[in-house]
Amino acid sequence: MTTVYYEDIEVGDTEEFGEYTVTAEEMLEFAEQYDPQPFHVDEEAAEDSPFGELIASGWHTASICMRLLVEGPLDDQAGMGARGVDELRWHQPVRPGDTLSIHTEVLDKRPSESAPDRGYVDSQLTGLVDGEPVISWVGLGMVARRPEAESE
Amino acid sequence: MTTVYYEDIEVGDTEEFGEYTVTAEEMLEFAEQYDPQPFHVDEEAAEDSPFGELIASGWHTASICMRLLVEGPLDDQAGMGARGVDELRWHQPVRPGDTLSIHTEVLDKRPSESAPDRGYVDSQLTGLVDGEPVISWVGLGMVARRPEAESE
Repeated sequence: MTTVYYEDIEVGDTEEFGEYTVTAEEMLEFAEQYDPQPFHVDEEAAEDSPFGELIASGWHTASICMRLLVEGPLDDQAGMGARGVDELRWHQPVRPGDTLSIHTEVLDKRPSESAPDRGYVDSQLTGLVDGEPVISWVGLGMVARRPEAESE
Repeated sequence: MTTVYYEDIEVGDTEEFGEYTVTAEEMLEFAEQYDPQPFHVDEEAAEDSPFGELIASGWHTASICMRLLVEGPLDDQAGMGARGVDELRWHQPVRPGDTLSIHTEVLDKRPSESAPDRGYVDSQLTGLVDGEPVISWVGLGMVARRPEAESE
């Protein structure tokens, strides 16, 4: 596996990856622990809500996208974590049986001025169900620069 | 319990609430499912990382804050969900045994132009450990307006 360093990433790079099907059982388990609002944890209340059935916590949907990122592009990237996330939006509810996949696009990159071992990489992430966006955010990542010994 | 409607919320309102202690066991369980990066799931790898020990997934920290919101101010609010979150930042790692609490401040409110039954309320959330910020975001909430029959 070749490690992807800051130098290997180009603005405009896109990737499509991942497949994760979420069950009602997993939605309930997450929401009972972290987001026990009625339309996430109570099937009867959810039937009377505008959604008509249980929907996933927005934080659960985000966490599933993170799992797909870790198994996908982050797996061979010299990533140094994220400073944060901008413009997190939940576009459509995620329902039991939905299968999420991911589209990413690199928006910007620049070397760190304070830390010469890393650069900043901003990427747009979109989580899709049946090709339609259900969640999106701009991830503010940090990626290690290629070690001197390996430079051309 | 008196329901808090859009009309009851004022810009500048602040609240402090919640207490949630996160264990290493819970951190591992969350990260194994949703964020299996070595410094979240592998104690030996974490010891060799800049953090020196296991740290919580940033999405786990966000999810814990959501739990405290649901048990706190959202419990009696006529909330209609969130459109999204801006400026999500992870300021410091969360470690086993840390206890999170929350500070919120209402930044802005305005009626919806398209849906007369609701208004938009933007709030700054800060998650604290020992009084120091570990996570923060601006939540873009929707809150129901007081029904006509109940207006003064």
